[in-house]
Amino acid sequence: MKYRRSGRLVDMTEYLLQHPHQSVPLTYFSEKYGSAKSSISEDIGIIKEVFEYKGIGRLATSAGVSGGVTYVPTTSRSDAGRMVDDLCTLLEEPDRLLPGGYLYMMDIIGDPALMQRMGRIFASVFQEEGVDVVMTMATKGIPLAYAVASHLHVPVSIVRHEQRVTEGSLVSINYVSGSSRRIQTMSLSKRSLKPGSRVLIIDDFMKAGGTLRGMMDLIEEFQAETVGAGVLVEAVHEKKKLVQDYVSLMKLSQVDPEARRISVEKGSLFADKNV
Amino acid sequence: MKYRRSGRLVDMTEYLLQHPHQSVPLTYFSEKYGSAKSSISEDIGIIKEVFEYKGIGRLATSAGVSGGVTYVPTTSRSDAGRMVDDLCTLLEEPDRLLPGGYLYMMDIIGDPALMQRMGRIFASVFQEEGVDVVMTMATKGIPLAYAVASHLHVPVSIVRHEQRVTEGSLVSINYVSGSSRRIQTMSLSKRSLKPGSRVLIIDDFMKAGGTLRGMMDLIEEFQAETVGAGVLVEAVHEKKKLVQDYVSLMKLSQVDPEARRISVEKGSLFADKNV
Repeated sequence: MKYRRSGRLVDMTEYLLQHPHQSVPLTYFSEKYGSAKSSISEDIGIIKEVFEYKGIGRLATSAGVSGGVTYVPTTSRSDAGRMVDDLCTLLEEPDRLLPGGYLYMMDIIGDPALMQRMGRIFASVFQEEGVDVVMTMATKGIPLAYAVASHLHVPVSIVRHEQRVTEGSLVSINYVSGSSRRIQTMSLSKRSLKPGSRVLIIDDFMKAGGTLRGMMDLIEEFQAETVGAGVLVEAVHEKKKLVQDYVSLMKLSQVDPEARRISVEKGSLFADKNV
Repeated sequence: MKYRRSGRLVDMTEYLLQHPHQSVPLTYFSEKYGSAKSSISEDIGIIKEVFEYKGIGRLATSAGVSGGVTYVPTTSRSDAGRMVDDLCTLLEEPDRLLPGGYLYMMDIIGDPALMQRMGRIFASVFQEEGVDVVMTMATKGIPLAYAVASHLHVPVSIVRHEQRVTEGSLVSINYVSGSSRRIQTMSLSKRSLKPGSRVLIIDDFMKAGGTLRGMMDLIEEFQAETVGAGVLVEAVHEKKKLVQDYVSLMKLSQVDPEARRISVEKGSLFADKNV
């Protein structure tokens, strides 16, 4: 197949979208299509303009012999605000209320496209942190963690409460659940996190932050470093937080089982600006 | 922004890739860009040619007043064969061997891009089955299940061994693990599967198929229907299978802890053709 500009644009767009946070040398494209580098540069200019205008992401280009292009998925604050607003409304439906003041969220967590959109927001927030790996707690944090990791092009480390024979040697720590004050255990396979890694913690729900605190301690045990933490929903009615430095997309500010009323508002990501 | 053909092609390519298995009316694009439907049709022809030539997927177009275009992600058998061959080699590394003849696979399951590629293969295999929901067992099946579901544009239902207070009413069944012969329990939130749904089961590993059999029984409890089952790896050394009708990508044919030898070959998907 001989590529003209139109065909190249379709193929390059697909390729870049499939390879976020990876520098692609211009020579890769020019050899693939048998086109001059100057033509490829023009193609990239067109893609860049559309990606930036439509809020799909940035195309970072580097000049010189090893010149290349890197696609960085982003979501603007205003787009993120609109998406999170919709999700807040969805979470306020009274029939989500479960005994004990819990909320049913499996329809939200079970929606891959929605998780991709939320994951992209976190990937955008932490794009400059040099994240090497995304860590989460099994099982409800997994879908969001994969969505974030796929946009950052890094692997996922899954921490568990139970110990599994299929993961080899484990490192386990005890931690105190912030809300129930019970002592619990969490474990991570020794092989699944390298010393020195820069770790982004992602979870679906945070009450007092005991699980997050535990994961941070576990990361230290591995001589790795926590570079950020993001949660989909935090419960504001838990007064005392065990963690300070995290980003939430939503805040569950009130759950009133008797009045069957749930109040959800935008989280800390939107706190410092009027978005 | 005024869109010329080049800009439209970039934007339409991105939009279609983000909306698999969803019919997009041509009027959506023609209104978005202020372009004639005939121009949009030509654009789609260009995208279709590249997508099909590069094995990215099909573009199914329907004519008439409600004419639209649907992007169906596919992977050709030969591409799938090459990807699975690479993965077989990776799985044969001797240092994956764990006590009890288990294999360490978290590096593979923890790689979002790899899971996306494998998920796309299953989405391609089951593209015509009218799948409404993908079901999996927590926790190791979750990443692959989401990858399949995102390509099919359907939600995920997660079955668990333990019972969780955050999921509301549950339906639980007992089942016999095929390899250990122990009686176990699996549960699924009542809200997470509608009667009449067409369910595709996805799991990471299958020994005798007891878990798969259990999920099929659970699906019947919900008056839903199993339309397919796919597993990443099946262990061939388990002689008696409790399930017949499934697709595997890889077969673990031999695990010899003393010789530190693992043999992995391509699975049932590749069995009937010489790929």
